[in-house]
Amino acid sequence: MAATVPIITLITDFGGSGSYVGVMKGVILSITPQARLVDITHQINPQDIQQAASVLATVYPYFPAHTVHLVVVDPGVGGARRPIAVETPHGRFVAPDNGVLTQVLLRAERWQVVALDNPAFWRAAPSHTFHGRDIFSPVAAHLAGGRALSELGTAIDDPVQLAPPQLEVTERFIRGRVVHIDHFGNVLTDITRLSWLADATVRFEPLDPRLEAQPPLCFEAASARVSFGWHVIEGMRHNYGEVPAKRPVALISSSGELEIAVNQGSAQNELGAKLGDPVTLFFTR
Amino acid sequence: MAATVPIITLITDFGGSGSYVGVMKGVILSITPQARLVDITHQINPQDIQQAASVLATVYPYFPAHTVHLVVVDPGVGGARRPIAVETPHGRFVAPDNGVLTQVLLRAERWQVVALDNPAFWRAAPSHTFHGRDIFSPVAAHLAGGRALSELGTAIDDPVQLAPPQLEVTERFIRGRVVHIDHFGNVLTDITRLSWLADATVRFEPLDPRLEAQPPLCFEAASARVSFGWHVIEGMRHNYGEVPAKRPVALISSSGELEIAVNQGSAQNELGAKLGDPVTLFFTR
Amino acid sequence: MAATVPIITLITDFGGSGSYVGVMKGVILSITPQARLVDITHQINPQDIQQAASVLATVYPYFPAHTVHLVVVDPGVGGARRPIAVETPHGRFVAPDNGVLTQVLLRAERWQVVALDNPAFWRAAPSHTFHGRDIFSPVAAHLAGGRALSELGTAIDDPVQLAPPQLEVTERFIRGRVVHIDHFGNVLTDITRLSWLADATVRFEPLDPRLEAQPPLCFEAASARVSFGWHVIEGMRHNYGEVPAKRPVALISSSGELEIAVNQGSAQNELGAKLGDPVTLFFTR
Repeated sequence: MAATVPIITLITDFGGSGSYVGVMKGVILSITPQARLVDITHQINPQDIQQAASVLATVYPYFPAHTVHLVVVDPGVGGARRPIAVETPHGRFVAPDNGVLTQVLLRAERWQVVALDNPAFWRAAPSHTFHGRDIFSPVAAHLAGGRALSELGTAIDDPVQLAPPQLEVTERFIRGRVVHIDHFGNVLTDITRLSWLADATVRFEPLDPRLEAQPPLCFEAASARVSFGWHVIEGMRHNYGEVPAKRPVALISSSGELEIAVNQGSAQNELGAKLGDPVTLFFTR
Repeated sequence: MAATVPIITLITDFGGSGSYVGVMKGVILSITPQARLVDITHQINPQDIQQAASVLATVYPYFPAHTVHLVVVDPGVGGARRPIAVETPHGRFVAPDNGVLTQVLLRAERWQVVALDNPAFWRAAPSHTFHGRDIFSPVAAHLAGGRALSELGTAIDDPVQLAPPQLEVTERFIRGRVVHIDHFGNVLTDITRLSWLADATVRFEPLDPRLEAQPPLCFEAASARVSFGWHVIEGMRHNYGEVPAKRPVALISSSGELEIAVNQGSAQNELGAKLGDPVTLFFTR
Repeated sequence: MAATVPIITLITDFGGSGSYVGVMKGVILSITPQARLVDITHQINPQDIQQAASVLATVYPYFPAHTVHLVVVDPGVGGARRPIAVETPHGRFVAPDNGVLTQVLLRAERWQVVALDNPAFWRAAPSHTFHGRDIFSPVAAHLAGGRALSELGTAIDDPVQLAPPQLEVTERFIRGRVVHIDHFGNVLTDITRLSWLADATVRFEPLDPRLEAQPPLCFEAASARVSFGWHVIEGMRHNYGEVPAKRPVALISSSGELEIAVNQGSAQNELGAKLGDPVTLFFTR
């Protein structure tokens, strides 16, 4: 192929109705008409930076490295927070500097960040309330269209990073929390596959999907036990069907987190799971 | 145009939030960057194979024949069900072998099916819970990108097919069921235009949109009568506006099924319709 | 770039599930495979022409002028309403002639409108209930693909236009209504930036986003006051963060309307706003 197809993904909290997403798409296509727009989701809970960070972290490693990932979840719009763009070996990113790129930065061998302070790449007379339209979209379009990161603004080295998850890790157990419940009612936690290699020290080891080809690490321990609310689930499984219908099952999710599910059912409904609920994994080694 | 644009449509039950759909799009574009991704819907009810089969059957005939239709509604993931790919003169399909392609197979003059057992076209180390990412998406991308069906796996001749709808057909009436209620509250049944040509035998004649240019077949029978719950609707109409506002109307839907609607209203709400409710069409010929 | 990329945007009330949107995409891509399809929204409230008109009016100015905007919100389908196509210097439009293009027509320096009465550009044997599939989509595809407006049908000069908003404008105040509540609970009104230049006469001056580069016009009047239900909000602000968290704030929205919001909250929930509620802007000049 002669030229690379420019790809721009979109993650916002703008919802599926209304005009905000459409306006952003129009701004992008007016600047870089050949860009491929890929909707990831517009259903992030309003202003939920953690959720957006989590969706982005799961998705971006699967895209080509030249992709521009545009994230507009921006409770601080119009205030002092900076707009930024980031380049890593695994993707490029345009977002408010509010921590939504934390995992991107943690995982990357190296990164460059610029504050988007060059108005030549903005729309004229930007509003105070819709930087998605006036700053982030045009910058993403210019980046996908071939402009260099360094043209877009001034290099910075202090992008905002969210605190890592508060896991409690001992020789005998790891305690974490429910961080996501998917469309099927499956419960995802912040206990990732790599984290249970840690011993007595709480060390955050971000999951990298590029490592998935490694063999799973804990499965000889069928004697693991997961405690969740009043429920105790014995053993880790490989897939839902290893337990009878409507029974709870603990396994490693397709993204590498400890997951609690109900075979042919909804763990959310049947076990009463809520975001933030504590989950403990006991194990033997 | 020198080359055909590769098109991949997506039907899943992954919902509009979360990262599963975005991950699949990333996998596809990493393999076949020039692919056009067309979202059909991600709002299939969780694990509802019948609904997915119905949406697919309505949609695919309108796409170019080289399109790859990717369907990931997969309650049996990680178990014994096979992943398959199908080629017909009217489209290509990648899906779990759980019956979701039943109508595709029924309608096609000829088809080829392969079990996707060649891991060269999968992602490395596929998970047990997300074959959408690890098997179906990469295979769809390779198929759209030019690989032959026969490369993807071993030919099989026994793909799973769902039982045809249980219509009761006599000389005087056809009895079927509500199978879909659309966004407007219009009620769609499994009584298709062709089915009421049948006589005393219950024979499933799949509707083929390619036949739509034929004149409708039953409309001289304005004396037809539709019975639904406590409601009796006299006569079949051509469009909603032929009855007063807020009155029920029976007609043939744009896809050829018997439809019950309320002019400028919701049949679902105003007639109390639910999926599975029986509907009877009495007719005279 | 050798050739312009044809772009078609879609606005419908078909919702996110079901097959109607997918069918339209298939029809378009079968006629003009190189078309870029851009989903604006399919979540228009069923048959809500005003809402669709409002979303379209906000979105289209940001797209390239050659874009074809396809709007299918069509309560009169199958009745006497005409299907039309419109060409303006700022976009091309295909829609039912039910007023959904009112603001497009009001804003354009010049326009051409045709009634879509040339069946050569329809699907064969169009249905009575789904002109989105049978007339609007194929016509939009042909228009994007290079056919001239004049080929598609007969020129008309009387397209349906909705009545302008009923603003009450005096020397001291403008009274309008809540016309949209966005995904964040922000409340948008029909009082646009330009309208408060008017004096004692009620004159509808459509907002044109192309004028946004002009300086805002009313901000010296920090003494403006917004009255809404039991609430009185003193002063217009530039952005949400200028008031304490959970406090109401009045400002000019990113699209130029008077907006009422709650900083880090939902004006809809916390002020009890509903569509149609009266809003009054008192000002001094």
